[in-house]
Amino acid sequence: MANKIMSINAGSSSLKFQLFEMPEEELLVKGLFERIGLEDEMIFSYSMKDAKVKTSVKGKTHEEAINFLLHFLLERDVLTSLAELSGVGHRVAHGGEDFKTASLVGQEALKKIKDLGKLAPLHNPVNAAGIEALQKELPACPQVAVFDTSFHQTMEAKNFIYPLPYHYYEEDSVRRYGFHGTSHQFVASEAADYLEKPLDSLKIISCHLGNGASICGIKDGKSVITSMGFTPLAGLMMGTRCGDIDPSIIPFLQNEKHLSANDMDKLMNGESGFKGVTGFSSDTRDIISEAEKGNERAKLALDMFTSRVKQTIGAYAAELDGLDVLIFTAGIGENSSVIRQMICEDLTFFGVQIDQNQNQQNCRRISSVASSVEVLVVETNEELMIVRDTYALI
Amino acid sequence: MANKIMSINAGSSSLKFQLFEMPEEELLVKGLFERIGLEDEMIFSYSMKDAKVKTSVKGKTHEEAINFLLHFLLERDVLTSLAELSGVGHRVAHGGEDFKTASLVGQEALKKIKDLGKLAPLHNPVNAAGIEALQKELPACPQVAVFDTSFHQTMEAKNFIYPLPYHYYEEDSVRRYGFHGTSHQFVASEAADYLEKPLDSLKIISCHLGNGASICGIKDGKSVITSMGFTPLAGLMMGTRCGDIDPSIIPFLQNEKHLSANDMDKLMNGESGFKGVTGFSSDTRDIISEAEKGNERAKLALDMFTSRVKQTIGAYAAELDGLDVLIFTAGIGENSSVIRQMICEDLTFFGVQIDQNQNQQNCRRISSVASSVEVLVVETNEELMIVRDTYALI
Repeated sequence: MANKIMSINAGSSSLKFQLFEMPEEELLVKGLFERIGLEDEMIFSYSMKDAKVKTSVKGKTHEEAINFLLHFLLERDVLTSLAELSGVGHRVAHGGEDFKTASLVGQEALKKIKDLGKLAPLHNPVNAAGIEALQKELPACPQVAVFDTSFHQTMEAKNFIYPLPYHYYEEDSVRRYGFHGTSHQFVASEAADYLEKPLDSLKIISCHLGNGASICGIKDGKSVITSMGFTPLAGLMMGTRCGDIDPSIIPFLQNEKHLSANDMDKLMNGESGFKGVTGFSSDTRDIISEAEKGNERAKLALDMFTSRVKQTIGAYAAELDGLDVLIFTAGIGENSSVIRQMICEDLTFFGVQIDQNQNQQNCRRISSVASSVEVLVVETNEELMIVRDTYALI
Repeated sequence: MANKIMSINAGSSSLKFQLFEMPEEELLVKGLFERIGLEDEMIFSYSMKDAKVKTSVKGKTHEEAINFLLHFLLERDVLTSLAELSGVGHRVAHGGEDFKTASLVGQEALKKIKDLGKLAPLHNPVNAAGIEALQKELPACPQVAVFDTSFHQTMEAKNFIYPLPYHYYEEDSVRRYGFHGTSHQFVASEAADYLEKPLDSLKIISCHLGNGASICGIKDGKSVITSMGFTPLAGLMMGTRCGDIDPSIIPFLQNEKHLSANDMDKLMNGESGFKGVTGFSSDTRDIISEAEKGNERAKLALDMFTSRVKQTIGAYAAELDGLDVLIFTAGIGENSSVIRQMICEDLTFFGVQIDQNQNQQNCRRISSVASSVEVLVVETNEELMIVRDTYALI
């Protein structure tokens, strides 16, 4: 029997999907709706076999996008009937402490996902809307939620409790959750396969470096520590996010500049990181290019970013008391040999040594023969992980 | 000629002093005024030779404390005349970017110290008041300011710029300064002497663990990175301070709990750390004792603290690309074998191994013969460092 499983990743004004044939993991079609809700039309792009198409579609809600998508799949004969869809896996930003694994979504789970919107107001409501739209159109098809936070639910309390008055954890759910869990889990598993070693025999540090960036320390196949926190602002410097800073700066700037709590939140999430330091871009490709031309602020931003990544690798090697595999993934991690080089330089104390050629060619293994740590570039595929988790549950 | 040099450390309601004979570094008398300004009398305690005395003294200002102190030194024949004082060294909390070393204080320097009160409102004004009082009483005696921040002025920009909009650095002086500089510098120098190795040949991580706590990575005798930041709130979890947390938590709690910027500042500085997590104490001695009786929250707090110290050691070993000497100092660092043990446990990847007996006896060297890292317990002495710096300048 054919097992066609779709992944759905709904953002505030976007919706991504991929449809796989399982268990072969054959990608049948993938696509993206953009500018949802901004005008009366949205932009729809997809790729299927060798074709890539971009067009506009009437409608302004996620529900309309999903209805269009289902008809599109029938029209193009990707599905002969909607009953062929064996399951849909939804990326959900926040699972709080309720969801420690991917879960089939019934009414109770849906309510919990909505309630967790308090902790992820920009994401969980729209994730829930995507699930509801598909439940309505395909009442017999299992809907599965795959959470960005679940993988990190194995962290011990010492690594997830903040040193604040304890009742903020008990009553207000303020703790470290961590994000990018699906990606860290996927690349760790891929790395173990590539090395032909059991995942649970490896001490792994996974660096998911994209516009959002986080690092995860993994032992026995489980997340031990990760750099994002209560929200995805924490940890590393990112495209427009500041990551960890002295918390006192926030009240100081609020008082000095007469900024509200929400002003500070916007400033730290949208005006900081690479954008804040360079003043001209949040994109490391632009920044590397300017740094090569001699722009001092661009050089500084790259030094700051790579230094923080390096320090976090050191911190997590201490937490794991060892390091077997260092993984780079996501936009920057998979594509920027310059940044990988800067991070791995002067990590000889940790046994990290890079092969320059392999690094420049974005090879899968970029560590040299002399390196005691395997340094790997692994393409992340959150959609495939979502579909795998869904397939396992239906 | 006799060189008698005094150190002065003025706090908001206290004033500590020590008087040394230099260059012999012989301590002649040390003492403390407490409860300054709280009532019409303050408490004065001192120790001299084998005598320890505690008494109360009329007066309610730092100036009155200093006047009393000078008369006391004459009365007890510690000085035969005030002209015998060759110099006074003042601990000053914040030297900003203006003071990269200890400095003789004239009118211009005094004005700068006062202006830096914007960055250290609880400390610099009272430090300046102490200097002024002594300048008035002893116009011919050189006054030297020794800054808690100066040692860290060797940090590179990548380690002191925050990933915020850059103008907050340029226009508002928001950057990492670091504190406890006098202590980190002192113990690093003591460690090199003890090991009979040149200071600039060693990669050192110094852990100043007291009610306030910070870690410093030192290379070529210079501070490369440190955990406190714009203020002493940053970095490690401390007695009542939270250290680094996800910055998003601040606007979140402000909105949820209707807290002002100043409320949050007080909460993070005074109600967090060990006190916040345990709910019963900010003192690790109490907490270790309760943990031994089975108190889960006390155990958690100790695990959190030691785990963060361990991770910071790993981070700084990455920044230094190596580790030769690990130093523990200050109240907890010098006295708590339990906490040192928890921190050094499972750091074998870094070459750290502890000798249980030597650790329990608070020996100077607590690493085992097999350890490739020298692990030392070094008593800090900020007053002596202040007096040494003063002696070098007069």
